[in-house]
Amino acid sequence: MSITVVGSIAYDRVKTPFGERERMLGGAATHFALAASFFDQVRAVGPVGEDFGESELEVLGTRGTDLADVERVAGGKTFFWHGEYGWDLNSRETLDTQLGVFEGFQPKLSEGSRASEVLFLANIQPDLQREVRAQLPQAKFAALDSMNLWIEIARESLVSAIESVDCLILNDAELRQLTEKPNLISAAREILGWGPRAIVAKQGEYGAALITRESFFALPAYPLETVMDPTGAGDTFAGGFVGRIASALAEGTSLSEGLLREAMAYATVLASFNVEEFGTERVERLTREEIEARLGELRAMTQFAASA
Amino acid sequence: MSITVVGSIAYDRVKTPFGERERMLGGAATHFALAASFFDQVRAVGPVGEDFGESELEVLGTRGTDLADVERVAGGKTFFWHGEYGWDLNSRETLDTQLGVFEGFQPKLSEGSRASEVLFLANIQPDLQREVRAQLPQAKFAALDSMNLWIEIARESLVSAIESVDCLILNDAELRQLTEKPNLISAAREILGWGPRAIVAKQGEYGAALITRESFFALPAYPLETVMDPTGAGDTFAGGFVGRIASALAEGTSLSEGLLREAMAYATVLASFNVEEFGTERVERLTREEIEARLGELRAMTQFAASA
Repeated sequence: MSITVVGSIAYDRVKTPFGERERMLGGAATHFALAASFFDQVRAVGPVGEDFGESELEVLGTRGTDLADVERVAGGKTFFWHGEYGWDLNSRETLDTQLGVFEGFQPKLSEGSRASEVLFLANIQPDLQREVRAQLPQAKFAALDSMNLWIEIARESLVSAIESVDCLILNDAELRQLTEKPNLISAAREILGWGPRAIVAKQGEYGAALITRESFFALPAYPLETVMDPTGAGDTFAGGFVGRIASALAEGTSLSEGLLREAMAYATVLASFNVEEFGTERVERLTREEIEARLGELRAMTQFAASA
Repeated sequence: MSITVVGSIAYDRVKTPFGERERMLGGAATHFALAASFFDQVRAVGPVGEDFGESELEVLGTRGTDLADVERVAGGKTFFWHGEYGWDLNSRETLDTQLGVFEGFQPKLSEGSRASEVLFLANIQPDLQREVRAQLPQAKFAALDSMNLWIEIARESLVSAIESVDCLILNDAELRQLTEKPNLISAAREILGWGPRAIVAKQGEYGAALITRESFFALPAYPLETVMDPTGAGDTFAGGFVGRIASALAEGTSLSEGLLREAMAYATVLASFNVEEFGTERVERLTREEIEARLGELRAMTQFAASA
């Protein structure tokens, strides 16, 4: 079994109040793969330029991620993002985006990537997400991320893409924007009506919520005193979430509320490690033991009994 | 045993996207008392004007709240607040504040109010909070709320007031403002160094977090599709929190992490009822059975198991 992820592989230039990196490995597919690879075989699909280094390729391949569909475009330049975060890390400004090889990207999936039972469509143009989705008609679980840009300029196509997946993972402000409903529950209910069976609302430092037709679940973010760089936190979250689901499906478990919640907890833990250092630095050398230990802590932080 | 609360008793004019009220009963002490009265005898301390109605007094006395220290100031006008909320209820604008009898308010506590074992200092000028605190030296548990205004114009006095209590209940943005630390955990740790043993960070629609020297706990807000009016949610939260602690202390239970967490859950539930209707309308007719039912739901919404 395996997980196919389609999305950006990038170089990021990032400045936060705690430091900066001139050119570090980034991209949605990268962060997703580094997290999901703890749980199952990942197959990364995305373009890189001639400038993409061997050592970055090696990091992308951490924990066995298959790189057969990482397309190196002759003469092309790798996607580049430059951003800076504000004092409390809750706001960020994009200073530069160079699409490079991402412009005109047409995902070409190998037989291996098409055979995956689980699919994650990271934030790319929604028409491309639909094309990829159509190439894995047998996938047991497909999840999708997006962003405000596509809500603004390609809403109809995005809605079609969402209709085709099992789970939408989006920032909560974007869920409101997408549905024009100020209330998160109302927004999620509307989207559940389009087809997905689960909506994950990412809430940054406040954690995340899971809304299904039957239930509501929410988890705080794992509390950290040192947050270095939030870049990639959302995709790392998605990697933990989708990864845990993939490993359970591979074992023959069906997609239950309990599994979705456990996946939310792994997602929260993975994202918390991601932000402790710049880019992929922390998750690269993360161990499963560290993940399990923090999962136990997170459970302890969210439990209460009532004596009345 | 009893709980003394010192704070505003007010008339509110409120407009939200879902309706408006020209002149409804409000004020921090009011909302606190309506929630805390489910758990223990409340004694309300605060001034009202000659314009304050008998029916409002009756509502304030719901579930037996003692009104002996509700001082009716001859010739005075009751504190009045006029505000309007934005489309998603997360922002509000104060259009008018008339202090009325609150200007020059000097809390006079009767013997009964001074004998309470639990004290809640609602948001008033911090020098007054300290004066009241000094009148209940034997209180087993004292908690304090404040606001950005006092951080800006009376920070030193506020810090002294905080040093004198067991628990600080504040919006999380105000915790950051008070300590000038952008990170919530760092901010809470600094304040724990001043004396309090528990910090409650109110996070609005995202819930609330509890930080002690030993532990971290967080709860999401109870999810609601219909939120009518957030006015008083924070004080209702405080009423549930302090109320539950008071009833446990009255039974001889000591202040444990488990009790603080259970109190957080009751606080969350009470606040969720408060916002379902305008002002005090919903909590006035709330029942203990409704509270317990929602508490069970909240527990179900925050639990997860891990199979790995």
